[in-house]
Amino acid sequence: MKYVHGYHQRENIRLQDQASTLVELLHSDTHYPAGSRVLEAGCGVGAQTVTLAANSPEALITSVDISDRSVAIAQKTIEDAGHTHVRFQQGDIFNLPFEPESFDHIFVCFVLEHLARPVEALSRLKTLLKSGGTITVIEGDHGSAYFYPDSESARRAILCQVALQKRAGGNANIGREVYPLLNGAGFHDVRVSPRMVYVDSSKPGLVEGFTKNTFTAMIEGVREPAVADGLIDEKTFDDGIQALYRTAEADGVFCYTFFKAIGKK
Amino acid sequence: MKYVHGYHQRENIRLQDQASTLVELLHSDTHYPAGSRVLEAGCGVGAQTVTLAANSPEALITSVDISDRSVAIAQKTIEDAGHTHVRFQQGDIFNLPFEPESFDHIFVCFVLEHLARPVEALSRLKTLLKSGGTITVIEGDHGSAYFYPDSESARRAILCQVALQKRAGGNANIGREVYPLLNGAGFHDVRVSPRMVYVDSSKPGLVEGFTKNTFTAMIEGVREPAVADGLIDEKTFDDGIQALYRTAEADGVFCYTFFKAIGKK
Repeated sequence: MKYVHGYHQRENIRLQDQASTLVELLHSDTHYPAGSRVLEAGCGVGAQTVTLAANSPEALITSVDISDRSVAIAQKTIEDAGHTHVRFQQGDIFNLPFEPESFDHIFVCFVLEHLARPVEALSRLKTLLKSGGTITVIEGDHGSAYFYPDSESARRAILCQVALQKRAGGNANIGREVYPLLNGAGFHDVRVSPRMVYVDSSKPGLVEGFTKNTFTAMIEGVREPAVADGLIDEKTFDDGIQALYRTAEADGVFCYTFFKAIGKK
Repeated sequence: MKYVHGYHQRENIRLQDQASTLVELLHSDTHYPAGSRVLEAGCGVGAQTVTLAANSPEALITSVDISDRSVAIAQKTIEDAGHTHVRFQQGDIFNLPFEPESFDHIFVCFVLEHLARPVEALSRLKTLLKSGGTITVIEGDHGSAYFYPDSESARRAILCQVALQKRAGGNANIGREVYPLLNGAGFHDVRVSPRMVYVDSSKPGLVEGFTKNTFTAMIEGVREPAVADGLIDEKTFDDGIQALYRTAEADGVFCYTFFKAIGKK
């Protein structure tokens, strides 16, 4: 598959090991060739767009999001980064204003987790893809989080995030499902490459960058709605957060897995 | 580290991806050089000894186990396989009959999970290791098992195995702890290489060989003691086993992670 340089599973896993940051782990093996038309579906505020644009400097990228406001922020972020090969547009993933088979490749990162009908979303996206084109999907899975020292309170705090996301129609444990989801939408040759983030104190960059500032910070962010909705009491939640920070100490270990899948039309 | 050919983390992970069987995934990057003295502590009936001996045909391997009966079975297995470079001996890992610094390398696979005092066991083994020698530890972690479709009954059946192992003084979730355990015993330069087994129906060998015949079969094996000890009722357990087999179907996914660590004295 020449259009995605290095998208070879062994190469992926080599990259996975080299990666010292989450961005490298997830994105460093996705490169779209010059002139290819790429749709980023669900760009949000452009957190992934920056990397996508930098890794495929000669592709023609179209990034869409349902939120006007997010699109505006993403556009500014990309302009500030000096990229001129990304155009932005507001749009609903279930009803995008593009002709069938408009794109060579589609990129969907941390989007399906928020949708109540992910297979339908993928099916709609498939109509926009040229025959022979690829879709790349990246999703996390909160059920893949485990750690040392283990903590019942930490597990309960994480389950609050899962429950709130479910209540909002999403699925925080969707990573493990990318294989059946892509097959369910009719893609073929689906290959899944799990990206396990293993963090111990021999990897200080990941201790700070992932365990503390990404995962634990994210869980910490649901304190108010979780307590307000009666999912957990304040003390248990706070104990859980403290226990998650505890896994970032010298003898601690934190594990989490993202799933990256590629399928063909 | 020339004594362990290919024990380079990237190479490991490449091998991990190539592996179509659990044996390859766990063992194919461990090779001890000609003439090196290797202690396999806790050989059981020789399940790992066969691979260890085949991968290091010119090392001098000493395999010990606390059970006389297991040692006899292991010895016959190795003799039947035609290996002549392994000697067997009954012995307690906490009190082995060897002089200090007798070995260049120590190999411990699926042993610490059964011990109430794993750090003490590692410390005892350390005295038997020459300065500059390595210890290799491989352990599973049942808390790393998750799957699609998810199933509360399946999770409860797995927790029976965890509870029974804990009751017997062991720890079925020890894999995530190998980093602190090796550091706690005073080894240095400890590096952990997780070996995630990701199984979907594009990998039929692992569906049969791992999801069904290794993991689910193991959980199925605790039905009687789990029910007898009141940990679970028969229906829930049987539903759980059925749900684990369900993950081996065309749209199913099963994930499990082993942890391989190497430390130096």
